[in-house]
Amino acid sequence: MDAEPGGTRRGVLRGAVTGALGAGLAVATGVSSPAVAATGGKDARLRVAVLLYDGITALDAVGPYEVLCRVPDVRVTMVARERGRVRTDTGELELVAERAMRDVRRADVLLVPGGSQRATVAMMEDTAVHEWIRHIHRHSTWTTSVCTGSLILGAAGLLRGLPATTYWASRPYLKELGATYTPGRFVEAGKIITAAGVSAGIDMGLHLAARLSDENVARAMQLAVEYDPDPPYDTGSPEKADEATETLALKLLADAAR
Amino acid sequence: MDAEPGGTRRGVLRGAVTGALGAGLAVATGVSSPAVAATGGKDARLRVAVLLYDGITALDAVGPYEVLCRVPDVRVTMVARERGRVRTDTGELELVAERAMRDVRRADVLLVPGGSQRATVAMMEDTAVHEWIRHIHRHSTWTTSVCTGSLILGAAGLLRGLPATTYWASRPYLKELGATYTPGRFVEAGKIITAAGVSAGIDMGLHLAARLSDENVARAMQLAVEYDPDPPYDTGSPEKADEATETLALKLLADAAR
Repeated sequence: MDAEPGGTRRGVLRGAVTGALGAGLAVATGVSSPAVAATGGKDARLRVAVLLYDGITALDAVGPYEVLCRVPDVRVTMVARERGRVRTDTGELELVAERAMRDVRRADVLLVPGGSQRATVAMMEDTAVHEWIRHIHRHSTWTTSVCTGSLILGAAGLLRGLPATTYWASRPYLKELGATYTPGRFVEAGKIITAAGVSAGIDMGLHLAARLSDENVARAMQLAVEYDPDPPYDTGSPEKADEATETLALKLLADAAR
Repeated sequence: MDAEPGGTRRGVLRGAVTGALGAGLAVATGVSSPAVAATGGKDARLRVAVLLYDGITALDAVGPYEVLCRVPDVRVTMVARERGRVRTDTGELELVAERAMRDVRRADVLLVPGGSQRATVAMMEDTAVHEWIRHIHRHSTWTTSVCTGSLILGAAGLLRGLPATTYWASRPYLKELGATYTPGRFVEAGKIITAAGVSAGIDMGLHLAARLSDENVARAMQLAVEYDPDPPYDTGSPEKADEATETLALKLLADAAR
């Protein structure tokens, strides 16, 4: 359990107290403001590039980001065709891409999130995106996806002959991309890791945290995001949900899609 | 399991196929473009207002958003002091607030995410924010928080005499705000629901989905985000993590804080 509360407001948010001190130190020593890190070429941290695009599913990107962004010596950067705002699949949220694809030629980790039907298909047909993905993949340590992001990796030709996973409703399509659907929250095949749908990116993020650092850091990040899941229902996969739930899920996805 | 793959690319992303049809229908009938819904006063949907602020933790906001944004007749809106970009606690991601606080005078659900030490303390000392929170709360059906967001609700005077939860490292502080720390991924007390740290917002989101609609919808949304958690470790709470993991988590939080 936690320590006793301190006497002051600043003293009682225990984790955050250290946080404030750490932030103060970074400012004092001029270390790694994110803007400097993103534009300068001297940043020695491992670079995780998350590909944003119009119609992505926000949690696909934000789940792994949240787990990886505090791993020591890791820098997460949001990348899109152009810098600036990217609207997610429901149209109710925008994320900001810090860098344009053409300005990012190397990344230690590439992460391709999934998106709506329309968005996924658009990315599966975008040869410029495929070229960028293949270029980054050539030099990456890990090339990863969440949800239908694996179909985009597949369309870029990266999954041929490999075991992989994807969003539950899209599993049958992996075969057409030359991959073999394999159950699991995430599937590692060589340097490619594909995660199942949406929230599975958090589980994959913890696995990646261990790969990029070590298991102690991964365990600490699980605690840092208090990932002790206890959903009030148990319908998180088609194997656990009944047919009515599956039908309703597909309808809700359809009704909210842009 | 899923249906057989269809013959065309568009035919095989099964959930998304319906999605594309649904989106087409919405365009054809001119129904509810998000921009119209956000600015017009004629939108009959339930309004979920998520308060963004400089230094928030992205997953605190995006977890519940992802679960709630597809609940029928629910509209999620990101709100901040001013419209526009809001930088998260690590500085590596920006979310966009669609509306300014002064332009949002009613919401059926208020959701206050947590943030870094600095950001949480700033919000705990911001009387203009407290006034806005109290005003929204007066008319809300549900007033909710994730992580250290409960300390902001508490600073606004909403938690006095109530059971509540918060981020694990901040539990001791609830007492100073007049609340009683109560274990759980989320704690419901009257119309106030507080969730534990970061990822607990997903669990609370499912509970809220049931409250705003029904349990069938909540179960369908759990499947829609494929929330069948299976983390590779089991250190998601201080009760499960050892002391070294806790110490390292606090250090990683500190090192990454702005």
